[in-house]
Amino acid sequence: MSFKAKIQGITGDATYTAKAQALKDRLEAQIPPSLRLDPAILDHLPLDVTGIPASCGLLTPAELAITELDATAVCERIAKGQLTAVDAVTAFGKRAAIAHQVTACVTDFFLDEGIEQAKALDEFYRREGKVIGPLHGLPISIKEHIPIKGRWGSAGFLANVERSLDDCDMTRTLRSLGAVFYVKTNQPQTLQHLETQSSYGRTLNPHNSNLTPGGSSGGESALIAMKGSCMGVGTDGGGSIRVPCAHCGLYGIRPSCKRMPTFGYLAYQKGHDGYVTSTGPMCSSSRDLRLFLQAVLGARPHIIDPSLMPLPLTIPDLSKKTLRVGIMMHDNVVMPHPPILRALELAKSKLEAAPNIEVINYEPYKHEEGYSIIRPMYFEDGARTVRRLLKEGGEDMLPLSEWVTSPPHVQDHDALAMWALHAKRNTYRRAYSDHWRQQGCDVLLCPPFHGTASRHDTAKYWGYTAIWNLLDYPGVVFPTGLKVDPSVDVVREMASPMSPTDEYNHSLYDPDIFVGAPISLQVVARRFNDGLALAAQEVIEHIIKT
Amino acid sequence: MSFKAKIQGITGDATYTAKAQALKDRLEAQIPPSLRLDPAILDHLPLDVTGIPASCGLLTPAELAITELDATAVCERIAKGQLTAVDAVTAFGKRAAIAHQVTACVTDFFLDEGIEQAKALDEFYRREGKVIGPLHGLPISIKEHIPIKGRWGSAGFLANVERSLDDCDMTRTLRSLGAVFYVKTNQPQTLQHLETQSSYGRTLNPHNSNLTPGGSSGGESALIAMKGSCMGVGTDGGGSIRVPCAHCGLYGIRPSCKRMPTFGYLAYQKGHDGYVTSTGPMCSSSRDLRLFLQAVLGARPHIIDPSLMPLPLTIPDLSKKTLRVGIMMHDNVVMPHPPILRALELAKSKLEAAPNIEVINYEPYKHEEGYSIIRPMYFEDGARTVRRLLKEGGEDMLPLSEWVTSPPHVQDHDALAMWALHAKRNTYRRAYSDHWRQQGCDVLLCPPFHGTASRHDTAKYWGYTAIWNLLDYPGVVFPTGLKVDPSVDVVREMASPMSPTDEYNHSLYDPDIFVGAPISLQVVARRFNDGLALAAQEVIEHIIKT
Repeated sequence: MSFKAKIQGITGDATYTAKAQALKDRLEAQIPPSLRLDPAILDHLPLDVTGIPASCGLLTPAELAITELDATAVCERIAKGQLTAVDAVTAFGKRAAIAHQVTACVTDFFLDEGIEQAKALDEFYRREGKVIGPLHGLPISIKEHIPIKGRWGSAGFLANVERSLDDCDMTRTLRSLGAVFYVKTNQPQTLQHLETQSSYGRTLNPHNSNLTPGGSSGGESALIAMKGSCMGVGTDGGGSIRVPCAHCGLYGIRPSCKRMPTFGYLAYQKGHDGYVTSTGPMCSSSRDLRLFLQAVLGARPHIIDPSLMPLPLTIPDLSKKTLRVGIMMHDNVVMPHPPILRALELAKSKLEAAPNIEVINYEPYKHEEGYSIIRPMYFEDGARTVRRLLKEGGEDMLPLSEWVTSPPHVQDHDALAMWALHAKRNTYRRAYSDHWRQQGCDVLLCPPFHGTASRHDTAKYWGYTAIWNLLDYPGVVFPTGLKVDPSVDVVREMASPMSPTDEYNHSLYDPDIFVGAPISLQVVARRFNDGLALAAQEVIEHIIKT
Repeated sequence: MSFKAKIQGITGDATYTAKAQALKDRLEAQIPPSLRLDPAILDHLPLDVTGIPASCGLLTPAELAITELDATAVCERIAKGQLTAVDAVTAFGKRAAIAHQVTACVTDFFLDEGIEQAKALDEFYRREGKVIGPLHGLPISIKEHIPIKGRWGSAGFLANVERSLDDCDMTRTLRSLGAVFYVKTNQPQTLQHLETQSSYGRTLNPHNSNLTPGGSSGGESALIAMKGSCMGVGTDGGGSIRVPCAHCGLYGIRPSCKRMPTFGYLAYQKGHDGYVTSTGPMCSSSRDLRLFLQAVLGARPHIIDPSLMPLPLTIPDLSKKTLRVGIMMHDNVVMPHPPILRALELAKSKLEAAPNIEVINYEPYKHEEGYSIIRPMYFEDGARTVRRLLKEGGEDMLPLSEWVTSPPHVQDHDALAMWALHAKRNTYRRAYSDHWRQQGCDVLLCPPFHGTASRHDTAKYWGYTAIWNLLDYPGVVFPTGLKVDPSVDVVREMASPMSPTDEYNHSLYDPDIFVGAPISLQVVARRFNDGLALAAQEVIEHIIKT
């Protein structure tokens, strides 16, 4: 399939087509000619495009070096006067333009605005001799449905594309901490796919363009994997930060809900209380996760948003205690693909040999039941709102939208049915908590997805992430450093399928197709133990990689 | 009206009548002959029955002295070996039996069980030389819908009366802290009245039996005002702790939701997320509020209940700062009756003269709109469940149930309507928070109700408490020490009514009817600032009473 065919966006009626084309034309016009890749490159793209920024000749060696930094390093250098905010955003902005041309990850490109913001910050630094905040000069990429004043956004449909009149709480907070905005990133129709195809196009996995970068924050993961950004903001209601980070070999956290500010985020089902969408960072190092959470929580967002909890981030010191790590090889619903099992087996053996680690074989608690509770909560109106918005925009329904909104999981609810569903949720949460305590683990190491990045239009099981959304347990995803290797990650025979979904997912595995895909794992902690999850992830990664 | 007519319970069909009679017979049989009041006393009860326990001759002087203690003093004496747990529960239990006979406040009386529990605690104390926990030996009374293992409870209807198989989290926690249970208390049909009439009977205000003790925790308030308990546990979803405390001259707090354990409480609309019911102490001193909250939160209830937040209680030291106290004379919807205005005016002038206090004339933010948002959330199914339960039990609908479940406020909702309602709630909460910050006050002093205790079947405005339930702002109620005095609390002319409810409530005022009713005020703080509310209440009360 040609590159152009791969990045094809959603289709629709004539009105839709005209409006979608206008969006794409606007975006196209935002990429200046000086940052355009040679058509010869585009005509002969390899499956793995991560090398293009270095090889294409559009970035200077200095710019390439800047974009190899993680966010903490960028902030440190700017704070020490070794790097200007203008140089930082220019480098990441140029690389973002290249990243977009080979992965279709961007929805709004405004490097000129970013440079103006950066100039003001550099001026402040020169004048005051200090930074304006802990993120002074850090370029941050933002998922499309998170408003930035004056920029384009949508809640997952063409019908609700809009130019934002104001920053939301998150972007206002980040701006006050010194962050610089220059790009917004792609997300899927409905915002409820673990892949990323929108009116702007389909985003590709930089490591293998036959695969998805994950979703719904897939524009972010592709962009950051291309190093067109070192820090992005995503959202996660079912896996939408963790799955794209896992699929692209990045670090990401879905924090416990109601800690980070989400007020003002675009949404099309406002007022739903069944589950809550969390927001958090996507980046290339675990220390960047801390940087982001500490900066945002340090701004005390609960003062302006009364829905947030005044819980500071407490990161425990694990060096002097035994960490009890539960390991869940599978959830009794869907068996992970061989690369994930290989990573878990490696992790297990290393952890078992490590001092100060107690490994517990974690027995999952009725994950199929939990999954059957959160699935209907995604569309409690039977997806009436989804269908209305598609109709309003003349937008065709994507196959994954069809799948995610279909009965029996999705049904229309009246008040009694909603209460019954939420009561089931509450009962399950309590039972799960009891179970977790009985298992006796501090944190859990488990798959972030049943496989590595999936083939386009096939991501139809969310259980490995959505179960933690239902429970509101924080989850950190990180790369093991391993990649799919057809010589070792051979197909394993299936004894008997644990579920119809298991059978389907088993049929999808083919090591030759997933070759080169990063293999990631997930560390989960109990609700509100975000700091423990962060600390444990670092300990576990260190052990796995030593 | 005769005393017997006043305490009349709910009526119903033949099946209902038989079952209700069986409940009442069981309760009657639980009061031993030795604790029965002389019929001559019952035949000539004064309106104010608070003197009966001392005058009736059933309690010894030592027992009377014990029951004059607050909970902190009871705990201190037991901890010092100056009082046994058996003597404490015996004294309060005997007085509770008397209280019940003159106010119909009890639904389950099991002093024998309490004495057994107390014996074991005394034995522990003798053996170990220390207390088992901070509430060692403290008799605590419990509202009917809060389960105690083996005791009777209901969720507000005869149809769901049951004998509890187990403690709920709250009673299990209190028990582990050393509390002793001996009595459960009355609550109204639906649990959604600010008065208290059930299958067991109608509870009367001990200060004036023509008035309600408030509701829905009105069995508690009557019992504690009679000193048949020094510490009770109530619940509050619209004012159900604060109004009964205010009406009976007690101290009470509705803590911010999701701090105190409510798991296992009986409820008939499980899974509703529109508003959350909070739970907290009702008692006779402000230090007892602290005692209870610190003891329960100190037990870290969030470890077993994952729906709770791990927020410790932080009580600020206000001695070294200026406290900014907003004063709200009325909510622009209903003008408080003259006694409440008198108390507020007195408080205002004293606070204005006090050092370290800045008084702010607080302008309420659209309380009528807020009230119109929470009203439908009480019965999002259009009260279908209420009608089903009444039908199942053959139970007649009380006039206040009819009022509280009627359109236009109460309507059936589908998923879209529920989301819309909850979205309105979220928008209002944010706007209110912005408004509060602009007003610049730390805490707010305001009425807990538009009047003192109301006449039976007339409590049809919840705005002064329910608005804080909608916002989830903690509220502390306390007695000003003032009582209704017809010579000063004369009817004030109404310029023009602010609302139809205003006109109705104005028409209810007659100082001769409310004579002797305690006048209370409410201190409110922003969400999660429970400790600030407690500290500020003490400062304000001290100034008012000096």
